[in-house]
Amino acid sequence: MAEANIKDYVVGVDLGGTKILAGIFNNSLECVTAAKLSTKPQRGVAKVIERIARCVQDAVDEADLSLKQVSAIGIGAPGSVNSAEGTVIFAPNMEGWKDIPLKKELEKLLGIPVFVENDCNIGALGVYAAELKSKPSSMVGIFVGTGIGGGIIINGELYGGAGHTAGEIGHMVLDINGPKCGCGNKGCFEALASRTAMFQQIKNAVKAGQKTILTEMLGPDLTDLRSGDLRKAIRKGDKFVDKVVEEAAEYIGIATANIINILNPEVVVLGGGVMEALQDEMMSVIVETARDYAMAGSMRGVEIVASDLGDNAGITGGAVLARRNAKP
Amino acid sequence: MAEANIKDYVVGVDLGGTKILAGIFNNSLECVTAAKLSTKPQRGVAKVIERIARCVQDAVDEADLSLKQVSAIGIGAPGSVNSAEGTVIFAPNMEGWKDIPLKKELEKLLGIPVFVENDCNIGALGVYAAELKSKPSSMVGIFVGTGIGGGIIINGELYGGAGHTAGEIGHMVLDINGPKCGCGNKGCFEALASRTAMFQQIKNAVKAGQKTILTEMLGPDLTDLRSGDLRKAIRKGDKFVDKVVEEAAEYIGIATANIINILNPEVVVLGGGVMEALQDEMMSVIVETARDYAMAGSMRGVEIVASDLGDNAGITGGAVLARRNAKP
Repeated sequence: MAEANIKDYVVGVDLGGTKILAGIFNNSLECVTAAKLSTKPQRGVAKVIERIARCVQDAVDEADLSLKQVSAIGIGAPGSVNSAEGTVIFAPNMEGWKDIPLKKELEKLLGIPVFVENDCNIGALGVYAAELKSKPSSMVGIFVGTGIGGGIIINGELYGGAGHTAGEIGHMVLDINGPKCGCGNKGCFEALASRTAMFQQIKNAVKAGQKTILTEMLGPDLTDLRSGDLRKAIRKGDKFVDKVVEEAAEYIGIATANIINILNPEVVVLGGGVMEALQDEMMSVIVETARDYAMAGSMRGVEIVASDLGDNAGITGGAVLARRNAKP
Repeated sequence: MAEANIKDYVVGVDLGGTKILAGIFNNSLECVTAAKLSTKPQRGVAKVIERIARCVQDAVDEADLSLKQVSAIGIGAPGSVNSAEGTVIFAPNMEGWKDIPLKKELEKLLGIPVFVENDCNIGALGVYAAELKSKPSSMVGIFVGTGIGGGIIINGELYGGAGHTAGEIGHMVLDINGPKCGCGNKGCFEALASRTAMFQQIKNAVKAGQKTILTEMLGPDLTDLRSGDLRKAIRKGDKFVDKVVEEAAEYIGIATANIINILNPEVVVLGGGVMEALQDEMMSVIVETARDYAMAGSMRGVEIVASDLGDNAGITGGAVLARRNAKP
């Protein structure tokens, strides 16, 4: 049984405001099993950390392994993270998460080295290592979901900047006279092209009398509207939803061009829940718009691709982070 | 006389569409003397390269030195540059400059190693080494002049990206419905806040009947309008010019915030001719607007400063490039 005790596995964790995902990854960076728990942030920070530990244990147990076979845990947390110290500086969507020593607390509970990063950074790392095989020197990941975030890889490493906050591309202003953003400014990328922005636009239009298949599908209040419903509506020929999604894709294309003009990365990867649901509808518009808006020379050698990792980008990146930091 | 032959000097050259500047720098990165020639790009590429060589020789002669005392030459060229090969890929403002082996040709004429970079990159390098003493790990230089360009330092090195075109921040879209830019898009940073943009706005307003001290100073056609004239007009109490400059400063502040949100660099430096002339009028508005628009956490540890190098940023950066690459 000696072999079974070799620390051949790592765990990647994606901590979100509503759910915790934990995945067990083998040496080939394959996810052998995953577990999910709701976050329940209202129960307080200590309880959430216990739930993270439980989710890890559930996943380990589900894979018929023991914690002794896990060499390290990598976790992505929403908000700003001091990765060197393993603390969550501030998580706007989880009450009480301010200067939380997540690494220390989780290590106490699990007895395994823990490494912490911002969720979008870790998502970018996951895409970079698992999908791009760590080949490009530079990459920017743009994650479009409830909000919009990004992660930047330079010289093969996550780039964090002066205060570990680099990659806040969702708050790049694209339209100075655009709609109000949650951050207080107007016309941020996130206020124009996130799931929240598209849903708000659709709901406002419906209230103002706009006809759409979505109300037939979900009722007049569009309860439980999801990105996948937009795809269904478009495939049923709903011109209105098609236009909303196309406009969001154009904004994503302009943001992509801005990033290419500034950073000229080898690869721009588009991921997140919206891209997962609407990749077929959005990608060609995004690429075409980015080509229109990027400087001619800046597009040379730059690839724009969609990630297929979807919700697994976070746990995959967590596994990469764990693998990179684990002692052999 | 052996001592005088020690290669203690480097030459920094700033090649622009209208003028060539060459500066002789000593070991302490002080400019001991400089020379200037007009570029005359209409005479053709070969003639311009000869003029660069002549400008270097003029500066060396003016400093009572000989070329033997120069260890290397660093040159900043407008447009996209392959710094590894020392070629100018494309310079939009100089006819015929396409795939020009500038390094090779200049080395033939001068017999000294030559290193080539994009002009904004080299300006950023000059500011970084001479003004910031190479201390920050990361820096972004924003140069506001006829156009707007940028240079990015990451981990103490110039960051070029996949195709050596990183730093094209002048073509970041800030206002999707804004004025048309020379690049064909609408609402680029450069179309909103460059000298060209401000002058255009002033000239259009004057044509439409706007009163301004500028017409008293320069005549109804505003012939030979310069950035310094805007400063004079503001100091004489011209509210209209004040507003134009303030609005441009706000756009520079928003662009600065976008850069901080994306890259979170330790330092953002504002340079170029417009900043040199209007630093006192613009800096407080720029800093205040950037603080308004940057994410709260993203501003932590980030400094926004004005460069005092002015027109000398290019030759200083050229000297730094030469010094870094020169064989000891």
